[in-house]
Amino acid sequence: MIDRLIEKIQKTEAPIVVGLDPQMSFIPGWILEQAYREFGETLEGAAEAVWQFNKGIIDAVCGLVPAVKPQIAMYEQFGVPGLAAFQKTVSYCRQKGLVVIGDIKRGDIGSTSAAYATGHLGKIRIGEKEYAPFDEDMATVNPYLGTDGVKPFLKVCAEEDKGIFVLVKTSNPSSGEFQDRCVALAESEDGPVSVFLSGGGKPGGRSLPEHSEELLKVLGNLQFRPLYEIVGEKVAEWAAEPELIGKYGYSEVGAVVGATYPEMGAVLRKIMPRSYILVPGYGAQGGKGKDLTAFFNEDGLGAIVNSSRGIIAAWTKEPYAEKYGADHYADAARAAVLDMKEDIRQALG
Amino acid sequence: MIDRLIEKIQKTEAPIVVGLDPQMSFIPGWILEQAYREFGETLEGAAEAVWQFNKGIIDAVCGLVPAVKPQIAMYEQFGVPGLAAFQKTVSYCRQKGLVVIGDIKRGDIGSTSAAYATGHLGKIRIGEKEYAPFDEDMATVNPYLGTDGVKPFLKVCAEEDKGIFVLVKTSNPSSGEFQDRCVALAESEDGPVSVFLSGGGKPGGRSLPEHSEELLKVLGNLQFRPLYEIVGEKVAEWAAEPELIGKYGYSEVGAVVGATYPEMGAVLRKIMPRSYILVPGYGAQGGKGKDLTAFFNEDGLGAIVNSSRGIIAAWTKEPYAEKYGADHYADAARAAVLDMKEDIRQALG
Repeated sequence: MIDRLIEKIQKTEAPIVVGLDPQMSFIPGWILEQAYREFGETLEGAAEAVWQFNKGIIDAVCGLVPAVKPQIAMYEQFGVPGLAAFQKTVSYCRQKGLVVIGDIKRGDIGSTSAAYATGHLGKIRIGEKEYAPFDEDMATVNPYLGTDGVKPFLKVCAEEDKGIFVLVKTSNPSSGEFQDRCVALAESEDGPVSVFLSGGGKPGGRSLPEHSEELLKVLGNLQFRPLYEIVGEKVAEWAAEPELIGKYGYSEVGAVVGATYPEMGAVLRKIMPRSYILVPGYGAQGGKGKDLTAFFNEDGLGAIVNSSRGIIAAWTKEPYAEKYGADHYADAARAAVLDMKEDIRQALG
Repeated sequence: MIDRLIEKIQKTEAPIVVGLDPQMSFIPGWILEQAYREFGETLEGAAEAVWQFNKGIIDAVCGLVPAVKPQIAMYEQFGVPGLAAFQKTVSYCRQKGLVVIGDIKRGDIGSTSAAYATGHLGKIRIGEKEYAPFDEDMATVNPYLGTDGVKPFLKVCAEEDKGIFVLVKTSNPSSGEFQDRCVALAESEDGPVSVFLSGGGKPGGRSLPEHSEELLKVLGNLQFRPLYEIVGEKVAEWAAEPELIGKYGYSEVGAVVGATYPEMGAVLRKIMPRSYILVPGYGAQGGKGKDLTAFFNEDGLGAIVNSSRGIIAAWTKEPYAEKYGADHYADAARAAVLDMKEDIRQALG
C-alpha cells in the first residue's frame, strides 16, 4: 500500500491527507435539516448528515489529494449508525481511488490487537466465507503495549498489502508528558544497552534490579534519550522487515509525528529512514508550512501532511467563509486544499 | 459509578470481572449453526452467534459477579454488525444489574478523546434530542497522549457518574518495552523535578536542552523511576479531583495493572491510593490467585480481577470440558466463576 500511496502523492504533487473528522459544528445547517427530515433527530439522522457532508467533500477533493484520514472517534460518537457512516465513507473513498488511512489509534495485547487488525485492515473467516469488515488501506496504531500489540498489524500488512502509522510523537500540547520523558540508556562494550529498573520486556535489553551494584556500575556511563526516540527506534525495527519494504524503499510501517514539533521531527526523520511520516497538527493545531521541511527527505518523499478542520471546515472561516459560505462548503474545502498544496510547495522549495 | 461497583463487589463477595471477549473458537458449534441458519455465514450471522453466546454467559453469571468487561475489539472485528452486538451486550448486562466496563483502550488528542468519551460514557445532543450511544458504565483509557487525551473522559465521568481505568502496566509480555523504561528525574530543593531532554509538556516539569550545563548539573543528582510509576503518579493526580471521589474514598479514575506483574502492582497500589485497580492477566495469561494480594488494600477493597477466556471458554478445557461440554457452556462458565471466587478468597485470606 505504501507504493500506491507514494505513486498517488507523485501524481497529485500533493503530500496531503484530508482529515475527515466531521464535528457537528462543521456541517452546514441545510445538510443537517435534510438528514433530520428524513431520519429524525436521531443517531441515524446525525450519521446521515455526516455521510452527506463527507460525500460533498470527497467529490470536491478526490482529484487533488492522494489520501483521506477519517477519524473514527467522530463516527463512534454516534454509536452504531455512526460507525455505519464510517464504513460507507471508507468504501466510497476507496471507490474514488483515494488511499484511506483509518485514524483508529488502536493497540492492545496480542490476541486483541489481532482482532483490531482483522476488523480494520484484514479479512475475517465466517464459516466458508470471508469478509473485510471495515477495509481501510492503512491505520494508525498506539504503541504503548509494545511489540505484542503491533505485531498482529504487521502480519496483516504483509498479507493484505496494507500499511500502518505508529504513534511516536503526537501533535497535542500534552504529548510530552510521557512521550518526552528522559529515558536512561547505558553504553557497554557492545554498544548502547537499555536499562530497566525491573524485569523489562525488551529483547536484548538488560534488566537490573533497582539499586543493584550492577546498576550503580553503569550509572557512570549513562546516556539519555527522550521516550519518543526509543519508540521511533522500535518503529524503525518493525519497519525493516524485508516483506514490508516496497519498491521505493519505504516500509508499510510509518509513524505519526506532529507538525507542532518540527525539531523532534528532524531527529525522528533520521531514526526511521524507511518510514513514511504522517504529520498531523498542520493548520488549526498551529503547525506551519515552514515547519514541515524537517519531516521530508531530500527527494521530497517521506512525509504526508494531514489537515482536518482547516479543510473540511474551511467554509466557516475567512478567507473562505465570505466567498463560499455554507452552500458551497465543498468548494471551500477544495480551495483550502489548493492553498495548502501551495503552502507546502513553497516550504519545500 | 465507583460506589456502585464497590457495593456490588461487597454484595457478591466477588472482586471479579467476567471478560466478554468472545473469540469464534469459544462459541459452541450449535450456537454458530443456529445463527448461520438464520443470518447466513455473514457478519450478521457471526454477530448473532456472539450475542447468543454472551446472553447465555450473562444469564449464568449475573448473580455471582459485580461486573463484566466486553472487549470491543472482539466485536469490532465483525464490523458494524459486531458493534451492534457489542451495544446489545452492554445494554443487556446493564438491565441485569451488572456494571459494564467497556474495554476500549481509547485515547487521542483532546477534541477526539471528547468524542470517544461522549460515544462510550456520555450523551450526544442531536437537534433537540439527547442520546447515549454505547452507554457503558466505565471504560479503559490509553494514556500515551497525556492529560489532553484523558481530561475529556474525566469531565464525562464527573457529569454522568461514570468511571475509567487508565492503562498503567499492562499484562502482556512486551508491556515492559516502553512501560518499564528507566526514566530520569532530578532531586531539587523543592523535591523531585521531572527532567525532559526537550520541551516537555508536564506542568511544573523542567525542560532542559540536551547536553546543557544545567542538565549536566542535575545529572549528579538523578533519580530513576520506571515509566509506569510516572504514569501511575499522573493517574493519582487525575483521580484526586474532589468531584471524582466517591463515598468510600475511591475515585472514578482507576488503573489497569496486570496480574502478571505483582511486584509492580504492590508499588502502584501505594502510588495510586484512591484508584481501583482493574487487574487483567489472571488465569489464561498466567496470573495466579496468590499474585493478587498485592493489588488489594487491607480492607479487601481496591482491586477487581478480570478473567475472560478462563471463564467464557471454560467449557473447552478441563476440569470443565468433561463435566459440561458445549451444550452446557454457560454452566461451565458459572462453575469457573465459583472456582475463581474461591481461589481469590483463599489468596486474600
